[in-house]
Amino acid sequence: VTRFVVIGGDAAGMSAGSVARRRDATLDIVAFERGGQTSYSACGLPYFVAGLVGGEDRLIARSPEQHRALGLEVHTRHEVVAIDTTARTVRVRDLDAGRERDESWDQLVIATGATPVRPKLPGADADGIFGIQTIDDGMVLAGWLAEQQPKTAVVVGGGYVGLEMAEAMRTRGIDVTVVERQPQPMSTLDPDMGALVGEALEGLGIKVESGVRGNEFAVTDTGRVRAVVTDQGEVAADVVVLGLGVRPNVALARDAGIAIGESGGVRVDPSMRTSAAGVFAAGDCCESWHRVSRRPVVIPLGTHANKQGRVVGINATGGAAEFPGVIGTAITKVCAYEVARTGLTEVEAAAAGIDAVAARIESTSRASYYPGATKLTVKMVAERGSGRLLGAQIVGQEGAAKRVDVVAAGIWNDMTADAFSWIDLGYAPPYSPVWDPVLVAARKVADLV
Amino acid sequence: VTRFVVIGGDAAGMSAGSVARRRDATLDIVAFERGGQTSYSACGLPYFVAGLVGGEDRLIARSPEQHRALGLEVHTRHEVVAIDTTARTVRVRDLDAGRERDESWDQLVIATGATPVRPKLPGADADGIFGIQTIDDGMVLAGWLAEQQPKTAVVVGGGYVGLEMAEAMRTRGIDVTVVERQPQPMSTLDPDMGALVGEALEGLGIKVESGVRGNEFAVTDTGRVRAVVTDQGEVAADVVVLGLGVRPNVALARDAGIAIGESGGVRVDPSMRTSAAGVFAAGDCCESWHRVSRRPVVIPLGTHANKQGRVVGINATGGAAEFPGVIGTAITKVCAYEVARTGLTEVEAAAAGIDAVAARIESTSRASYYPGATKLTVKMVAERGSGRLLGAQIVGQEGAAKRVDVVAAGIWNDMTADAFSWIDLGYAPPYSPVWDPVLVAARKVADLV
Repeated sequence: VTRFVVIGGDAAGMSAGSVARRRDATLDIVAFERGGQTSYSACGLPYFVAGLVGGEDRLIARSPEQHRALGLEVHTRHEVVAIDTTARTVRVRDLDAGRERDESWDQLVIATGATPVRPKLPGADADGIFGIQTIDDGMVLAGWLAEQQPKTAVVVGGGYVGLEMAEAMRTRGIDVTVVERQPQPMSTLDPDMGALVGEALEGLGIKVESGVRGNEFAVTDTGRVRAVVTDQGEVAADVVVLGLGVRPNVALARDAGIAIGESGGVRVDPSMRTSAAGVFAAGDCCESWHRVSRRPVVIPLGTHANKQGRVVGINATGGAAEFPGVIGTAITKVCAYEVARTGLTEVEAAAAGIDAVAARIESTSRASYYPGATKLTVKMVAERGSGRLLGAQIVGQEGAAKRVDVVAAGIWNDMTADAFSWIDLGYAPPYSPVWDPVLVAARKVADLV
Repeated sequence: VTRFVVIGGDAAGMSAGSVARRRDATLDIVAFERGGQTSYSACGLPYFVAGLVGGEDRLIARSPEQHRALGLEVHTRHEVVAIDTTARTVRVRDLDAGRERDESWDQLVIATGATPVRPKLPGADADGIFGIQTIDDGMVLAGWLAEQQPKTAVVVGGGYVGLEMAEAMRTRGIDVTVVERQPQPMSTLDPDMGALVGEALEGLGIKVESGVRGNEFAVTDTGRVRAVVTDQGEVAADVVVLGLGVRPNVALARDAGIAIGESGGVRVDPSMRTSAAGVFAAGDCCESWHRVSRRPVVIPLGTHANKQGRVVGINATGGAAEFPGVIGTAITKVCAYEVARTGLTEVEAAAAGIDAVAARIESTSRASYYPGATKLTVKMVAERGSGRLLGAQIVGQEGAAKRVDVVAAGIWNDMTADAFSWIDLGYAPPYSPVWDPVLVAARKVADLV
């Protein structure tokens, strides 16, 4: 019997283990997770903190017990502290017992995830400053908010997680300010589209301080944060949530001599194999191929983690699957607004050295005469000359977010903006104008290339 | 100066005229429309009849006056009764003045639309029986309902328009029964998916008599319909709305010696040219190439009419556009339900002689833990062996209808179900589970091919 060891019990690792189990009933599959849970939705944490989800168990897709019932050996509160790629062992620390032991493997998947970036500023380690990545982080923050009843909050960083956390705390009645270094929040969008999100936030009672640099965290005598000090003054904060993104956890792999890519994630080929024989990587800790910019990137998302885990599970059991890469699709809810992007923004296209043109249009979510139609803004980016679709961004209300999927499918298939504008899409007055907004945008950008 | 004559002032004809105008300021463009309006949304008529839209002018995208202001010569209440392809003239009847005259053309577009099918049954011409295709039809029915205040209605035919009209009359408080010859309503879906729609209708207070054949319309002494007599009894009806589909208006073309296709629509090539030199056709009266079944079809939808009109407008002004065909995408709202299809159903694939496999899955519109998540059923059809995606059907509530667009883009690009299952689609808990339902369905059908 051969042994497949999984490091990390969330989406990527447990997908790998589960798929391997379904394909091979005899394989010995052992997972080590340093936290207390497996297979939870990290993306659901803002809604859990907002109090919308009910108990944290609702975020758990499959508990350790459920995995065990399916024939996986799962050890929670066990941290892998070293990998030996020659002896094919891992050194495992039992966090509760405080003991270490070696465990052997024939194949290994590194699915160590990512950790929130903490700014290197004075006071950054004060009480009341939280990063949110794991379900344990979410439970700690939710407990703290319930107990301490803070009145003011600052979210540092206005990206997806930052804005979702801002909304979560606003939902709990806290006075929230988002501090963002860029000129507008949501810098994963182009400035003209990000500005729409900024307006939406202000309209919904969340203060946004854009173009502002945090210098330090002011701390009370008892070691608790009381304000964020910026280059433009102090913002009171009974609690601070960090939304500065995450960094892939690659130390374990690096220390074992496994190659790290230029993107900062563990380097993998399309079969998700690392530079070490028998060792796969998947999820937030590894890099992905961006099909549009044609560069490796680290995009920590549950969708990629699940798919990459699936590829590992297939390949660890004699199959031949390939992860075909990513195109940077991401959607989020900002209060009543839906925000979506796919492919490259105009800014990203320029950074990738691609000569691009862009068009922005306003349309409606339903036929304009149908009750409840709301404004939808679509920006589309295409390559000059070839007309190849490069990216799209959508900001609106009902139906804005998932409308990006059809553009994602077009980009995935290397369509030109002109070819895209003829696709036979669904139309009914409650759901779309007769020319869907994405087709109108494609037509407009096609006329510019 | 050359002269471009447009027969029919709705989506296809006026798109052709408007695009031609934008591309060529000197062209003489003349449109003849037998009704009183131009460029209206026929798809909006059910919502107008339901009383949701306000005045009928809200359905009008561009009135005759607005077209005239843009430099088109528009004659409403003018019916073209004959085309002479040798002399290059049309015979036009001024319906109000009762006079006819000849008008010359250098290029012509036939955009005569379609007419609701009337069953050849005794009593079919009684008062109170309505077909709905034009805005004039919609105004007549809405006026009649307001004046006569019927208590019972029968809709004959449970397709898109039939069910939309059933909902419209239910919204007005009328007791509605849908009579459908097939074993379930919405026979543009496979029976298993259509059955879900039937259950939804019943749950919402609309009676459905499926597998029932209408034999005649019972008529009062004064010539008004009072019931629909079926092979299973009588259904009382103060008003009857026909939802039996439409037939393309091809008599004018046929009488002029222009070829009609095997599908029953005016035959056109990808440039929308008919068999007669200088004569184009577009919209509900002409046929389209179905990219999946690889057969000509007549699919009367405003989306195709607009695109085909655009192709005509480009080609009539020296351009070289092609209409790339259709794939049978259609969506509709049935009370709280959203219904969508694209490509071929399992039944249609069999009829087209394609060896197909199908998979049906249930998922949710949002992450299962996110408040408001509702059930979503997706059926996906693929070609056995090649794995080529052939079609998809979706029935659910929020977000079901437009979710079909991403599958449409996949089918449009000849993707396999397996390739489709890896696309980087948007994910956030308010809008989708981590594996979008369409990806789950694609994966399941990929495993069957």
